[in-house]
Amino acid sequence: MKEIVAVLGAGSWGTALSMVLDENGHEVRLWGNDPEQQKEINEKHTNHHYLPDVVLSESIIAFTDLEKALEGAGAIVFVLPTKAIRAVAKQVALLLDGKNKPHLVHASKGLEQDSHKRISVIIQEEIPAEKYDSLVVLSGPSHAEEVAKKDITTITAASENQVAAGYVQKLFMNNYFRVYRNTDIIGVELGAALKNIIAVGAGALHGLGYGDNAKAALMTRGLAEISRLGVAFGADPLTFFGLSGVGDLIVTGTSVHSRNWRAGDLIGKGHDLDEVLNNMGMVVEGVATTKAAYELAQEKGIEMPITEAIYKVLYEKADVKQVIEDLMLREGKAELSSETMEKGNKEI
Amino acid sequence: MKEIVAVLGAGSWGTALSMVLDENGHEVRLWGNDPEQQKEINEKHTNHHYLPDVVLSESIIAFTDLEKALEGAGAIVFVLPTKAIRAVAKQVALLLDGKNKPHLVHASKGLEQDSHKRISVIIQEEIPAEKYDSLVVLSGPSHAEEVAKKDITTITAASENQVAAGYVQKLFMNNYFRVYRNTDIIGVELGAALKNIIAVGAGALHGLGYGDNAKAALMTRGLAEISRLGVAFGADPLTFFGLSGVGDLIVTGTSVHSRNWRAGDLIGKGHDLDEVLNNMGMVVEGVATTKAAYELAQEKGIEMPITEAIYKVLYEKADVKQVIEDLMLREGKAELSSETMEKGNKEI
Repeated sequence: MKEIVAVLGAGSWGTALSMVLDENGHEVRLWGNDPEQQKEINEKHTNHHYLPDVVLSESIIAFTDLEKALEGAGAIVFVLPTKAIRAVAKQVALLLDGKNKPHLVHASKGLEQDSHKRISVIIQEEIPAEKYDSLVVLSGPSHAEEVAKKDITTITAASENQVAAGYVQKLFMNNYFRVYRNTDIIGVELGAALKNIIAVGAGALHGLGYGDNAKAALMTRGLAEISRLGVAFGADPLTFFGLSGVGDLIVTGTSVHSRNWRAGDLIGKGHDLDEVLNNMGMVVEGVATTKAAYELAQEKGIEMPITEAIYKVLYEKADVKQVIEDLMLREGKAELSSETMEKGNKEI
Repeated sequence: MKEIVAVLGAGSWGTALSMVLDENGHEVRLWGNDPEQQKEINEKHTNHHYLPDVVLSESIIAFTDLEKALEGAGAIVFVLPTKAIRAVAKQVALLLDGKNKPHLVHASKGLEQDSHKRISVIIQEEIPAEKYDSLVVLSGPSHAEEVAKKDITTITAASENQVAAGYVQKLFMNNYFRVYRNTDIIGVELGAALKNIIAVGAGALHGLGYGDNAKAALMTRGLAEISRLGVAFGADPLTFFGLSGVGDLIVTGTSVHSRNWRAGDLIGKGHDLDEVLNNMGMVVEGVATTKAAYELAQEKGIEMPITEAIYKVLYEKADVKQVIEDLMLREGKAELSSETMEKGNKEI
């Protein structure tokens, strides 16, 4: 199959996914709202701010006009920062005529501020069901830099509609980009969003000088607490065991490539949050997601000690050293039990 | 409480655990069978081959005489290579009189060759139940080097007997060594042993030049396959979600401190297995465990593609590059499902 695919969002991940789609023979239109970036992509075939040292195929065309980008597209892939999803989905809705119904895919990882909504929910709220064929979430352990180098990457395509998941699998699958189908869209989206909180925490531990044993402890107990929240919202706990859960947590929490980890590391080293975010030059989803998850946990009465600790550091100017120390020294108790997972609100 | 504790095995982990016990005020007797090492520990207060640059407390006394080491001991901690467990347990059985019943603890990570038995099973076979109080497994993400530096470490004490687990928790717990209780001795022992296979695989990927995305994929799918085997042998699948499962996998599979990872890395770089093991100078449990797990999987009809791949490289001189490439390129399928976990033998 050859499709026209509109990729919305020309950051590192949108660009890397465009490269995969182009490699697979699709007509790729990479949409962003920065004319200079568009010019760079179309003339120099680079996107140096997001993927330094990477040369793009000349057949990847950048657009700033959304209408032109969407014209005749069989698939639309949202790869935008979480906070931009609703506004862009609104524009997409206006441009779809309901005749040519594209497949919608999103590969963003976050929760909406204040509403705490998942990204697929936002898209469904903004784009009427009669205007598209299906909605699939693409998520998994995938540094854009490595995908751009054609390193082997595995990823999950999640949808309640397995025909649609199969379509997305076929669209992206090649010999270095392996796509697995999954039915648990809630678990995949929550795993993708919430693991960034734990990555910020793992970075902060490193910045404070803690070692690998402490990092493994934080990541393990972090995985348990994000699973608890996920289960409370209808996710299958086993999804957190999969590529979009533990897989993405491993890649995000143990790699300097991860901007969430890097932000945490700088905070652990004593830098101010605003300073860190300003210097990053890219969106650090974990920071906003921490707030959303903290509020959700409060709402549902779910204990999330790591999220709470990171929240206090990021939003209440608590001393990172003291907070992390308190967290790591919580009294020894019985470990994770089946009951814990089922009830979703017990101490581990 | 102050106990006399005999730690059997003066490798890096036995020595680090002795340091924790000594720090907690117990009388520590560190038993090994090398008189030169004994002399070094008692006179220089170092164990340079296993823990370079670490100075031991003068109150940790090394023994080569097992009878003297066990005299009056309230707890006996086995921290031996898997292949030495049965012989030493046999000797311990002869020396216990059945009056002073010590608590037994083991912190070894492997499966017996040929019999494929877990370590607690070997100990129970060799030491009659009337000669000891209880048996507890100690396992979790814990590089000895970091414990020796008093970096924060969390670990699981597993026993069917929660009073015994509580005793071990109290014995070891302090402000940098955090012990959590768990009831699933089968899951904790299998997770501890089997994760070393995945660590060898993660090392091999690195040695072959693969990146973090591939490593996360291998570790995620590795966790799923070792859980499948564990569940088939009666483990609670959630244990693989805990410190002794995913926690230990993270620390072993992402750190150059791990000798299993290092062995895999060298094999990935094209070195011969015998050469790697000779140069290591320490036991690489993952190599023997791969054989045991491969045979168990064959016996029970459980699909373990990663274990099978590592087995072929280690024992059938298969080309590591080709085997890993084949493994990473297996056809895209539906991801982990609840059914997979429950039935324990389905494709993921």
